[in-house]
Amino acid sequence: MHPLQFTAESSSHGMVGRDFTVGEVPGVLWSPASGTDRAPLVLMGHGGGTHKKASAMTGRAQLLVNGCGFHVAVIDAPGHGDRPRTAHDEREIAALYAARAAGEPEGPIVVRYNSHLAELAVPEWRATLDALQERPEIGAHGPVGYVGINMGTAIGVPLAAVEPRITAAAFGQHWPDALAESARRITIPIEFALQWDDEHIPREAGLALFDAFASKEKTLHVNAGRHKELPRFEADSATRFLARHLARPLAAQV
Amino acid sequence: MHPLQFTAESSSHGMVGRDFTVGEVPGVLWSPASGTDRAPLVLMGHGGGTHKKASAMTGRAQLLVNGCGFHVAVIDAPGHGDRPRTAHDEREIAALYAARAAGEPEGPIVVRYNSHLAELAVPEWRATLDALQERPEIGAHGPVGYVGINMGTAIGVPLAAVEPRITAAAFGQHWPDALAESARRITIPIEFALQWDDEHIPREAGLALFDAFASKEKTLHVNAGRHKELPRFEADSATRFLARHLARPLAAQV
Repeated sequence: MHPLQFTAESSSHGMVGRDFTVGEVPGVLWSPASGTDRAPLVLMGHGGGTHKKASAMTGRAQLLVNGCGFHVAVIDAPGHGDRPRTAHDEREIAALYAARAAGEPEGPIVVRYNSHLAELAVPEWRATLDALQERPEIGAHGPVGYVGINMGTAIGVPLAAVEPRITAAAFGQHWPDALAESARRITIPIEFALQWDDEHIPREAGLALFDAFASKEKTLHVNAGRHKELPRFEADSATRFLARHLARPLAAQV
Repeated sequence: MHPLQFTAESSSHGMVGRDFTVGEVPGVLWSPASGTDRAPLVLMGHGGGTHKKASAMTGRAQLLVNGCGFHVAVIDAPGHGDRPRTAHDEREIAALYAARAAGEPEGPIVVRYNSHLAELAVPEWRATLDALQERPEIGAHGPVGYVGINMGTAIGVPLAAVEPRITAAAFGQHWPDALAESARRITIPIEFALQWDDEHIPREAGLALFDAFASKEKTLHVNAGRHKELPRFEADSATRFLARHLARPLAAQV
C-alpha cells in the first residue's frame, strides 16, 4: 500500500489545502482552516480536460469544507493536471478535437476515452481512499461521499459500484453506454443532474443513466439549457444532498 | 370587484392566519407574526380532495412565512373545503372512486374533472389576487409567486398562463393533456416535481408537461418513489426557488 505523502500546504478561502501524492497520483486534500477534527470525507472527480484545482473544484470544495465542515479530496485523473499524457491520451484528444472541428458528435469518443480512463482511475481512487483513511482526521470508519459530473461521473459510477465505503454520490451529465451496468449495481442515495437542452448528451441517454441506478433514494435535477449551462445552484444542491446523507451518520459512529 | 373581508384571525407556528372571503370564495392569508410589513405574496393551490388548511398547506406556508417573511394565500377550490359540492362534483368523485375500486386508471377522470375545476378557479384566483393587492402589506406592485402540485398544478398552470402578475411558479405531478397548451404560453421561471415511479402519471406524461413550458429558466426534480412519496425536501426546494425569484426584486421595487 502506498502511504499518503503531503508535499505542500496553503490556505485559501477559509480552507487549508494540502497537496499530496499516493504513489504516482497527485491530489489535494481540502480541510477546514479551523482545525482537523474528524469529519466526513468527500471524494471529488474533476471533468475532462481540467484538473484537481480547477475553479469548479475549488468552488465546490469551499461549499463542502466551509459550509459543512467536511474534508474534500481531489486527485488528477490519468493524463490530466500534473500527470503525463500517454500516446493513447494524445490520440484520443486529437480524435475529439477532429470530431468537434468536423461538427461530428463527440459522444462516441468521450464515452470510449472516459471508459478507458475510469479503468485506470478506479484502483487509483481506492488506493487514495485507503491512504486518506489512515489520517486521524478522517479515520477508517467515517462516512465517505463522492461528487463529480461529466468525466467525474464516468469515473465515479464504476468506483461507487465496487467501493462499499462510498455511501452517497452526486453525479450527472453523461451517456449511459459504458455506465448503466455499473449503475445497476449501485444502491446508495444518488443525486443526478442533467441539462434538458444538452447538445452532446440526448435527453433519453441522460434519463436512461438516471433510470439505471438501483438506488431506492435517487433524485434527478434537470435544468433548461445547454451542456455547459448547468446552474450554479446545482452545486449548492449537491452540497445539501451530501450534508443530508453524510453528516447525520457521523454522530452515531463517533 | 369583490373586496377582501376578514372573518377570523388566529396564530399558529409563528404565523398569523386570517380567514377571508372574496365574494363566495373562502381563503386564508398567512403572514409573519412579527408584523405585516410589505412582502412578496405566494398563492398556494391545494390538492384534489383536500382544502386550504390541510397540513401540507400549513406546512408549506410555515416554510414561506417563517423562512422567507412572505405572505401566503390559499383558497378553497370549487367543491372543496368549506365550499358546497355540486351534482357535477358528486358525479365526478363517484366516477373516480369507481375507477379506483375497479383498478382502472384514474388519469382520464382526474384530468377531465381538474380541467373543469380550473375553468372555475382561474377567475376566482384572479379576483382574490385583485382583492389581496388592495391590502397595504401586499400592494399592487409586489412580486407574486404560485405553488401547487397535483390539482394545484391543474389550476395553477392555466392561471399563470393568463396572469402576468405571477412571476415564478412551482408545479408538479400532473398529466399534460389539458395543460400543455397553457404551459407553452408560460415563460416565467418554473420548478416542476414528478415521481419516477408514479403509479398514476406515466413518466413520459410528466416529462411532456415539463417540456411544454416555454420558460428559459425551468428546473425539473424527479425522485424515485410512487405518487404519494414526494420527499419532504421538495417543499424546502420550492421554498428556496420562490425565495430566489421573489425576494430579490422586492428591494428594487420598494
